[in-house]
Amino acid sequence: MYKVKVYVTLKESVLDPQGSAVKGALHSLKFNEVEDVRIGKFLELTLEKGNYDLDAKIKEMCEKLLTNTVIEDYRYEVEEVVAQ
Amino acid sequence: MYKVKVYVTLKESVLDPQGSAVKGALHSLKFNEVEDVRIGKFLELTLEKGNYDLDAKIKEMCEKLLTNTVIEDYRYEVEEVVAQ
Repeated sequence: MYKVKVYVTLKESVLDPQGSAVKGALHSLKFNEVEDVRIGKFLELTLEKGNYDLDAKIKEMCEKLLTNTVIEDYRYEVEEVVAQ
Repeated sequence: MYKVKVYVTLKESVLDPQGSAVKGALHSLKFNEVEDVRIGKFLELTLEKGNYDLDAKIKEMCEKLLTNTVIEDYRYEVEEVVAQ
């Protein structure tokens, strides 16, 4: 079994209105040291082991469904889980 | 300047309908090796340096606004950025 953690972030050049809203809310709670907030997604996938190329599979899933590569970047980490 | 990365995930015992929907979509795209999907949030905060306790500040922000501690867990990483 593999645990795959995918981190999806908006590209630097893309405006992040959700992040701006959270920043405004933090400021109104007197957290004035906050300069910037960017919000992304974090996906944890559990994959069965099998006879396939894991990296290619993850990239295909990210590019077909999980991310919008026009405005988002992604990175991922794979952990192999040994059955107990 | 500090870059703080906060990862927010639903607790194990909490149903994740968004994750189930994504899993269904992946299956319908023939990614049948996907066993489970959990979706969380990923926040990147930029904080000014100052005379405050960073860990306490981050915990306070997370608990007051960024996460719902009844159903969510969070963890964070801090990176110190040296001005260039």
